[in-house]
Amino acid sequence: MLQVVIIGSGNVAQHFIKALANSANAKVVQAFARHLQDLEHLLPATAITSSYESLKEADVYIIAVKDDAIAHVSSQLPFTGRLVVHTSGSSGMEQLDNKNRRGVFYPLQTFSKNKEIDFYVVPLCLESEQEADYQTLEDLANGLSRSIYKIDSEQRKALHVAAVFVNNFTNHMYTIGDEICSQNNIPFGILGPLIQETADKINTLSPKNAQTGPALRHDGQTIQKQVDLLEKENHKELYTLITQSIQQTNE
Amino acid sequence: MLQVVIIGSGNVAQHFIKALANSANAKVVQAFARHLQDLEHLLPATAITSSYESLKEADVYIIAVKDDAIAHVSSQLPFTGRLVVHTSGSSGMEQLDNKNRRGVFYPLQTFSKNKEIDFYVVPLCLESEQEADYQTLEDLANGLSRSIYKIDSEQRKALHVAAVFVNNFTNHMYTIGDEICSQNNIPFGILGPLIQETADKINTLSPKNAQTGPALRHDGQTIQKQVDLLEKENHKELYTLITQSIQQTNE
Repeated sequence: MLQVVIIGSGNVAQHFIKALANSANAKVVQAFARHLQDLEHLLPATAITSSYESLKEADVYIIAVKDDAIAHVSSQLPFTGRLVVHTSGSSGMEQLDNKNRRGVFYPLQTFSKNKEIDFYVVPLCLESEQEADYQTLEDLANGLSRSIYKIDSEQRKALHVAAVFVNNFTNHMYTIGDEICSQNNIPFGILGPLIQETADKINTLSPKNAQTGPALRHDGQTIQKQVDLLEKENHKELYTLITQSIQQTNE
Repeated sequence: MLQVVIIGSGNVAQHFIKALANSANAKVVQAFARHLQDLEHLLPATAITSSYESLKEADVYIIAVKDDAIAHVSSQLPFTGRLVVHTSGSSGMEQLDNKNRRGVFYPLQTFSKNKEIDFYVVPLCLESEQEADYQTLEDLANGLSRSIYKIDSEQRKALHVAAVFVNNFTNHMYTIGDEICSQNNIPFGILGPLIQETADKINTLSPKNAQTGPALRHDGQTIQKQVDLLEKENHKELYTLITQSIQQTNE
């Protein structure tokens, strides 16, 4: 049984604590939170500390804090030579203090406080500085997810940008759909099945092959009418630039 | 039992023929196809015609052809005073020849030839010129879908633009994610669960409230690093413009 310490109390830390509670080969022996009450609904009070000096011995320390706090937190650890990983998509492994054995344990998913996640389908992207530690991370990952990838720091940065496109930017497309609907007294829910089908389709087609619409068809008349119809300037600009990008991609 | 004639043999026409085969209160009595063989896998040969003169009497004629053919096809019909609808999101009802009673029966979904659709969840957007015909369209829709909306021509044009954002443009975000992955030897499938969760999330949160990421956080350092990391010029431009749009929307 792998002994794990979680450092952090935010969304990602909490999702890890919940997921590890269901793991057959790892358990959370302790969590670090500046405010103990942030984790009291998940762990017994005796398993939460706010003092670095009280951290217990463990096989893996998972630092799940904001990107810009990783370096500081890892430098505060009062021990050396142990396996310490962070969970960030956009930070290199070298953000961690090199007094410990370093690694990354990056869950490629968007976590919300009030929405449960099926952790078993979350892709886990693993990296370790020392070859021998990779096996430990893989064992830990196997108890949590069916989907495990060896991803180095350079790949992970690229992956994080890709995630910004398919998650943050896609969600902004939904926001614009919502804005257009409310300007025209149409309930946004009417777009739900289309949004769902758009996401489902790429399970059977590559997104390039799934592309449809006036941009792809170079239907200049519809494109112009639609740009004219948009009320907000940023919607017009986005419509035009994304249309151009679709046409360039499919040249 | 409502008698329906389908005019057209493309994706939308075929999905309607299949959906109507399961309807309890309507049936396809005939379909019109320029090439009979396009529909022979769906209907008996005797129920397919390529001659306008042979069209049977019916309660509703559904014209499911390309947008720019609607006016011509509707003018070719050799009868007057009957209920004729088109299925287009971007065409006004007035595209139809006014010798017949006009209406619109717009399924808000993306249809592919090789992917089955659960028609029961497809939103149907209805409009009729004459009040009395609305009831007929609603009866027809009730046998096909659980999700029926009264949408006039102006609203429908706006809705079609919203659909371009949440479907065509979202799919382009997936394409860019795919491009970034393949430039970095990462399988695109790794993004699947994130894409799915992004679509699922708006069932419980408005897209505006679901927004996350460096743009929303005004995390200028990450934004600059990510733009620098992108290799293609159109990706850089889109990243920058969508980031600005997210920040404007959430000011």
